Amino acid sequence: MRETQLVGRLVADLPTNENVLTGAGDDCAVLRIPQGERTLLLKTDAVVEGVHFDTDTAPGRIGHKALARCLSDFAAMGGIPDSCLVTLGLPDIGQADRAIASYEGIRDLARRHGVSVSGGETTRSPHAFFLSVTLTGYAGGEGPVLRRGGCPGDALFVTGMLGGSRSGHHLDFEPRIAEGRWLVENFRPHAMIDISDGLAGDLHHLLRASRVGALVESRFLPVSREAGRRYRKGISGRTPLQAALHDGEDFELLFSLEAERSVALKDGWRERFPRTTLSLVGRLESEPGLRLRTDSGLLAIPDDAGHDHFGGS
Amino acid sequence: MRETQLVGRLVADLPTNENVLTGAGDDCAVLRIPQGERTLLLKTDAVVEGVHFDTDTAPGRIGHKALARCLSDFAAMGGIPDSCLVTLGLPDIGQADRAIASYEGIRDLARRHGVSVSGGETTRSPHAFFLSVTLTGYAGGEGPVLRRGGCPGDALFVTGMLGGSRSGHHLDFEPRIAEGRWLVENFRPHAMIDISDGLAGDLHHLLRASRVGALVESRFLPVSREAGRRYRKGISGRTPLQAALHDGEDFELLFSLEAERSVALKDGWRERFPRTTLSLVGRLESEPGLRLRTDSGLLAIPDDAGHDHFGGS
Repeated sequence: MRETQLVGRLVADLPTNENVLTGAGDDCAVLRIPQGERTLLLKTDAVVEGVHFDTDTAPGRIGHKALARCLSDFAAMGGIPDSCLVTLGLPDIGQADRAIASYEGIRDLARRHGVSVSGGETTRSPHAFFLSVTLTGYAGGEGPVLRRGGCPGDALFVTGMLGGSRSGHHLDFEPRIAEGRWLVENFRPHAMIDISDGLAGDLHHLLRASRVGALVESRFLPVSREAGRRYRKGISGRTPLQAALHDGEDFELLFSLEAERSVALKDGWRERFPRTTLSLVGRLESEPGLRLRTDSGLLAIPDDAGHDHFGGS
Repeated sequence: MRETQLVGRLVADLPTNENVLTGAGDDCAVLRIPQGERTLLLKTDAVVEGVHFDTDTAPGRIGHKALARCLSDFAAMGGIPDSCLVTLGLPDIGQADRAIASYEGIRDLARRHGVSVSGGETTRSPHAFFLSVTLTGYAGGEGPVLRRGGCPGDALFVTGMLGGSRSGHHLDFEPRIAEGRWLVENFRPHAMIDISDGLAGDLHHLLRASRVGALVESRFLPVSREAGRRYRKGISGRTPLQAALHDGEDFELLFSLEAERSVALKDGWRERFPRTTLSLVGRLESEPGLRLRTDSGLLAIPDDAGHDHFGGS
């Protein structure tokens, strides 16, 4: 297969929507800006072979993960995704089938969220397959929720279950777009972030941006079954609680809002998202730093316990 | 150096502009859409070690090239660039200085064009350094110029000099943003494209999109001094004329417009861009295909003579 044939296969049947004026095949993608939108959201992210997925990972799951990571960041702002661009790095043209299959993962997820694939680029990448995805979209009338709006006294919530994502969740998760939109439209969180580096690491990001601290109750943390299973089987050296705090790639939403709205939020959530857990895990405080209340007392969780992609020192 | 320290260095002193509401450091970049803009332009592109640059290429030039390629695509639509996102793939944290220096090339070029760097991502890339850049911007009131508007009878123009880009131009070129804007505002080309795969290859793209053919006069082709020099020195097996047709990475503009406006265009161009050559190289015809008139007669240039990034078959 030649490159032009591969590109022809990749651009065949790309998801589109009413905002695509000129998609793949011209110098740039040309998109209509929806009436009333005054704020553009942008996110870019890459997944690289040997770092974010293994060589034997099913290509469709690689594509899914590449787009889902960007969607998760949109969810954390309550954003409305609109269009994505994909850059594909391929070791050699003999892996064309892998490229085509990875696009299927992108396409399926894009369609479910009404996102167009409006362009991209194919390049040779001598040693490692990679996908770099850029997502564009809009903030909606309410405006985006940032990391920096958290206030002392806010209740701190997290969606879903935490830890053990490496057993599969990180390749299959459904980004919390609907949940993020619903939160912004109905409860307007003060601050929000998605959990990619682990609850502790991302909470530190939120605390730093908001210039506050937090107290988290360990008994309220929603620990996934996978976290427990991996620990029992000896796959993970982390206890289930440590996994929930530090594993990373959960892609859940972590947000704060006025404590007095907690009951209304829980009630509304249960009605709208009956199958997804929403946990009140702690509160924001004016004293800086992150404290975890455990059976044996208060534990300070330092800011550097998180994820370092290079394992550097 | 740890990843957080590297990221801290990379995001220090990023170029900004009046449209950046929230730049690097939150889940997404948040940008104001300028009043009156209804059309968004998007382009993404990656440069990979061993493919688009050599291991010993100065990192600043790598950064420059990564952004300049996207800007060149904007130029080819007459677009107004606004903001970029950068994804950096780094083999190991020991190459942090290389990453920082590559950002300098991006920053300098972005500043010259009023483009903000509003976010990005750092990832490990086990074997090859890479930069993936996404550029966003707007079409302006005139709307974008596509590849598909060319008409039989149109005069065909090319900016600058062609061929021999590998001797350095591909790393240092200044994207033709000002020229593209001026053309759209003053002469509204029917069709336009930037030359990245070689004049012949990209002209074929334009012809296919416009459903026309072309006759090109070989004696009018602006052959660069580098193309001649590389041929004489035996660095390139291509004659200077072949180099001008097929070398690629010239990043010049190729466009068509009504033949009767050619003189006015040439006069206006000379006044506005006195140091940049503008060459009338041929005309569009209703008969499909690309024909080159040489001293020894008409030569058909097939569509597959261009660039294949994989050299596949």
